[in-house]
Amino acid sequence: MTIFLYDLVAEADRRPSPFCFRIKLALAHKRLAFETAPVAMTDIKALEGGAFKTVPILKDGERVVGDSWAIADYLDEAYPDHPPLFHSPEERGLCRFLEAWLFSGVLQQVLRFYLKDIHDLLLEKDRAYFRQSREARFRCTLEEAAAGREARLDAMRAGFDPARITLTHQGQPFLSGQTLGYADCILAGVFLWIEAIGTVPLLVEGDPLVAYLERVRASLAR
Amino acid sequence: MTIFLYDLVAEADRRPSPFCFRIKLALAHKRLAFETAPVAMTDIKALEGGAFKTVPILKDGERVVGDSWAIADYLDEAYPDHPPLFHSPEERGLCRFLEAWLFSGVLQQVLRFYLKDIHDLLLEKDRAYFRQSREARFRCTLEEAAAGREARLDAMRAGFDPARITLTHQGQPFLSGQTLGYADCILAGVFLWIEAIGTVPLLVEGDPLVAYLERVRASLAR
Repeated sequence: MTIFLYDLVAEADRRPSPFCFRIKLALAHKRLAFETAPVAMTDIKALEGGAFKTVPILKDGERVVGDSWAIADYLDEAYPDHPPLFHSPEERGLCRFLEAWLFSGVLQQVLRFYLKDIHDLLLEKDRAYFRQSREARFRCTLEEAAAGREARLDAMRAGFDPARITLTHQGQPFLSGQTLGYADCILAGVFLWIEAIGTVPLLVEGDPLVAYLERVRASLAR
Repeated sequence: MTIFLYDLVAEADRRPSPFCFRIKLALAHKRLAFETAPVAMTDIKALEGGAFKTVPILKDGERVVGDSWAIADYLDEAYPDHPPLFHSPEERGLCRFLEAWLFSGVLQQVLRFYLKDIHDLLLEKDRAYFRQSREARFRCTLEEAAAGREARLDAMRAGFDPARITLTHQGQPFLSGQTLGYADCILAGVFLWIEAIGTVPLLVEGDPLVAYLERVRASLAR
């Protein structure tokens, strides 16, 4: 039975969700075959009896699981003979810290920077909802969020310095050490997301995170 | 045979090294008995044939190990029947990320804030060396580093927000999840260090990190 993943979709089949990228990387890491089912932002609430407000949503036979953490736990539980996402509860705990670091600080800047880009790429039907909900959250218009963003580019990129230090000065190719782990799915998911939707690159040539992202891709393509 | 740990010492037997606190917490976590051997900063280079420039240095019978990461690895290798510091290479990798986050950003602010406090508490014989080396590194005098520091207090405390979010919103009492791990030795070691040397508290009542530090102490006292 093929695993299905409801995946947020934008124009030209672009996929504008970092959480969906995270789970796609996790599925690849677990060597599980899957297909994505593209879904518009405003159609999520109509899926699977209206049980979910966000994607990713994973459908594995009769089992339907929402929320990326619940999905990761489900995958390790359901497929113990495939490579684990979490080798220990301690690794899982530290992945949650990584997410807290990323989403409390660094990604607030990133999201603000790319907010208008995301809007402009979304399906026509999703744009009004996106504008309203994000303008309420950020307390400014999408245009105000984007204004003068070039001046914030260096600071935004520097926000990832703890990852750069880990990957360059500490002799480990992945956040998780010598081999890719769920923490890398979290971080690389962010880079793939921005790659899909950004009109200004987040990572530029010479950045050790470019080489890192290549290692992640190579690791999952093997 | 008792394990000895060379531990940086200041006036009134205070211990001004976050790396030594980390290893003392790690030894307690592994339920290994140890004694500390207090050492002045300027005496480190004379220890054990001059092989080390920093503490902690662990002496276990004939074996002498410097550097906190090498010590942690040694302890897991030498005492496999005691609770592990690292349950997997992935956990170790993420502990290095935690250190990169802490020491690249947050702790630069913390160190600058408490630099003069540390100096004033050091043994008389260590003060000139400390002043010279730290003033060169920070490119300002200790007095300049301390000037107007109260204005930076809130930002310094906010630097620990990713830890607060992990420990409060994600239902896990420790960075490492439900039980204390090496990551918690790293973070709590910082708090114990500032507790020992700061004239202004880093953590104040109501901060979830105060309750966290109590949990760390309780976990190790069991």
